[in-house]
Amino acid sequence: MSSSSTYTQLLNHVKQSSALGQIAGVLSWDQEVIMPPNGAPMRAEQMGALEVVSHAHRTDPRISEWLEKIDVDELDEVGKANVRLVRKSYERSTKIPTKLSEELARITSQAQGIWAKARSANSFADFAPVLSKIIDLKREEAKCLAGEVGNLYDALLNDFEPGMTVDVLQPLLEGMRPRLSALRQKIAEKSGGRATLTGPFETDAQMKLARSFADIVGYNWQSGRLDLSVHPFSSGTGNDSRITTRVDADNPLDCLYSTLHELGHALYEQGMPEQYVLEPVASYASMGVHESQSRLWENQIGRSKAFCNWLLPHMNEAFGKDTVGSVDELYKIINHVETGFIRTESDEVHYNLHVLLRFELERELISGTLEVTDLEAEWNRRFERDFGIAVPDAAHGVLQDVHWSVGLFGYFPTYSLGNIYAAQLNEVLRKAEPELNEQIAQGKTDNALNWLRENVHQKGSLFEPDILIENTVGAKVTAEPLLNYLEKKYTDLFDL
Amino acid sequence: MSSSSTYTQLLNHVKQSSALGQIAGVLSWDQEVIMPPNGAPMRAEQMGALEVVSHAHRTDPRISEWLEKIDVDELDEVGKANVRLVRKSYERSTKIPTKLSEELARITSQAQGIWAKARSANSFADFAPVLSKIIDLKREEAKCLAGEVGNLYDALLNDFEPGMTVDVLQPLLEGMRPRLSALRQKIAEKSGGRATLTGPFETDAQMKLARSFADIVGYNWQSGRLDLSVHPFSSGTGNDSRITTRVDADNPLDCLYSTLHELGHALYEQGMPEQYVLEPVASYASMGVHESQSRLWENQIGRSKAFCNWLLPHMNEAFGKDTVGSVDELYKIINHVETGFIRTESDEVHYNLHVLLRFELERELISGTLEVTDLEAEWNRRFERDFGIAVPDAAHGVLQDVHWSVGLFGYFPTYSLGNIYAAQLNEVLRKAEPELNEQIAQGKTDNALNWLRENVHQKGSLFEPDILIENTVGAKVTAEPLLNYLEKKYTDLFDL
Repeated sequence: MSSSSTYTQLLNHVKQSSALGQIAGVLSWDQEVIMPPNGAPMRAEQMGALEVVSHAHRTDPRISEWLEKIDVDELDEVGKANVRLVRKSYERSTKIPTKLSEELARITSQAQGIWAKARSANSFADFAPVLSKIIDLKREEAKCLAGEVGNLYDALLNDFEPGMTVDVLQPLLEGMRPRLSALRQKIAEKSGGRATLTGPFETDAQMKLARSFADIVGYNWQSGRLDLSVHPFSSGTGNDSRITTRVDADNPLDCLYSTLHELGHALYEQGMPEQYVLEPVASYASMGVHESQSRLWENQIGRSKAFCNWLLPHMNEAFGKDTVGSVDELYKIINHVETGFIRTESDEVHYNLHVLLRFELERELISGTLEVTDLEAEWNRRFERDFGIAVPDAAHGVLQDVHWSVGLFGYFPTYSLGNIYAAQLNEVLRKAEPELNEQIAQGKTDNALNWLRENVHQKGSLFEPDILIENTVGAKVTAEPLLNYLEKKYTDLFDL
Repeated sequence: MSSSSTYTQLLNHVKQSSALGQIAGVLSWDQEVIMPPNGAPMRAEQMGALEVVSHAHRTDPRISEWLEKIDVDELDEVGKANVRLVRKSYERSTKIPTKLSEELARITSQAQGIWAKARSANSFADFAPVLSKIIDLKREEAKCLAGEVGNLYDALLNDFEPGMTVDVLQPLLEGMRPRLSALRQKIAEKSGGRATLTGPFETDAQMKLARSFADIVGYNWQSGRLDLSVHPFSSGTGNDSRITTRVDADNPLDCLYSTLHELGHALYEQGMPEQYVLEPVASYASMGVHESQSRLWENQIGRSKAFCNWLLPHMNEAFGKDTVGSVDELYKIINHVETGFIRTESDEVHYNLHVLLRFELERELISGTLEVTDLEAEWNRRFERDFGIAVPDAAHGVLQDVHWSVGLFGYFPTYSLGNIYAAQLNEVLRKAEPELNEQIAQGKTDNALNWLRENVHQKGSLFEPDILIENTVGAKVTAEPLLNYLEKKYTDLFDL
């Protein structure tokens, strides 16, 4: 059999694997948005059965035979990328013993409930034992992936940010700390109290405005939908890329900017190269690149003064009143800076400092230099070091994020990578579209979307993320554009 | 390994198969109710991939080994039923060559589109070629299932009504014809014009009333939901049993009685024995029994005068006006009898005559005594024989139902079986609950539901349908109760 027909066989097989993965996504979406509450136990059985057959499909030994037979040199760029991605995913699947995967799935499934209860009870001690188990299993998993000599944290990181290593990441992220800390200090000395919008803000009006956000950014309603859920999220890909949001009656900005964030994710997914649907190459390059898309729309576009020019009249119209006195006032409100305990609620200046704390702690947990028994005390000590305020309780500290309970170690830094990539992309986008602010003020973002489509979305995972960014912006990954953007924005805003 | 641990292995395997089957149901529901329109091609890929792995799972050769090892005499009643059902489904799956299954799936998937277009164009000639192919494939399938000597139609019937044969079914259904024809003649001579309700009937009010139908019949909202779709349907089982309905602004009865019909299906699914969830025994006994539950709630309960006593004030309240003058008038409206062309719109008197026509024609198509080229002419000739009116066009005749395009041969008679079972069950239920009409008039149906739960729902598929009915009603399956019920109801109603 020729190499190219072997490639076709392989591709058909992995497209089925992709389709099975998408099914798991549909079931999860349904569970969060639609499913009646009593359906949960049966849904767990469905997910379990799907994982059994999907795992068998992903680890089918024929994949290895096909990979051996294929002459990569005969393939085009897309074919080469597909083979690279299949090989990586196949090796990952086969390196980890099934028993370990099952144990991890079982423990993390339990741990989410334990974490939620511990957070309600404000008791880290209730969560610590299961977290210890998870870390033991994740270390074991990392050993399987990294081999004898590899770095454990790199192995975990690689699941979310292919090709990234601690050697590169640590100086990149830690390097931001001095300028971020200096900026937050300066702002703290200047910033006044928080202005607020004049309510009330009816649910229907919030959702209508959220939908108009989707309209102006070019979200394709024929290939997606917007629903409500407890936590906003995006789900699906290509022609079925859905988002959710939530409504806070007192604060419409939560709904609006959550929507804009998820729209950024969904635009990326809707922009995947349709001719390669279900092929590995037609999926996102990394979690960092995914986050760059959500953050660019949320922050560089959505929290710009230009966007406030569009937003103010539309907000007043939606809520049938003068919600705020002027565009300048609105711009201040949506860019309010305040030291807080919760990462997900933090502003652009503090956000990466939150991520740095987790990145530092989870590296030490995985390397074994930090024990789970010491984690809460270390969290609190370092939080005060970084933010200057004392953590009042575990719910506002070490228990605030779900990630570790799900076994997501190596995921947090991708949030900061997303911010870094977003700022790099934004810098080049602004050069390519010098009139972008004027367009945004008119609610016209099609040029921005087209640029992202062409330079990021349509590339799928043809390249590893650092290469994708370098190709697009013409420079290595660096935090300079992000720091410059933040310093300029807040210096102007607070007259620093 | 002991027989009982082999049984446990088998059971775990088939529970996974059931879970995979449920996933296909969730994906279909999502496609009909939720999915954005552009998602269809990707959904088809997902369904295809799921079917590949589900088929492999259902036909896993270990099932045959396990079945051989199990000593059925050691099992309790439920275990025996599970083994019987697994054996049957395994044998069915393995008797049909994969190539034939795939060909059938491919052709019927195309045929639905061809049928829909042909119906719009009112051209049976456009549909005939693909229908011929489907019939050839169904005959081939039936031959695989029936073996050398078996009856082909029986083999197809058996997919929907286990254990039923043409030898039993044909006299049962054909036996209804003289009394049904006589009844429709008598009514035609007496019946006046159709009275109507006074509108308008707002969508929200219709849906609110539909929800109150669900409330009074004891539908568990924690284990289900009600949505809108083009065609009403029910989906799922156990603790996730969903229904859909539709809204016609001019005719609220369409929404209300569609809802009640689907509620009957969903109550059956919600009533499956929870301790055996995902086991073969915890699924419906047959399509006929399923239909009996929808028809009993829709007709014997929902179209009773007792129910009109509850409905009238609630309808007036929902629509904020006097929709109709009296309970008697409402009773006449919801039981209006009129000869029409469309099965799904027909009244209780005409319904089974529609089914008889299809049963007769599809038996001949499968046996080969009727050619597809003659089908339209034969449909029209026999329709006029049965109903006394000439079919105006294919859309109102041979092209009206989707079933044959999907390959559903042997399905139509289960609609009439449902009506027959419903009337048999209703007769016994009324004896067990002599005050049922008074309760229904108060919107209290919990005694009826409990009786159905105990005698039908909780039995799942412990017995084949004829045994289930015989056990519950203490008599063989017979159309007498249905004919008696119809004659009495319409004699009273029209003073025949």
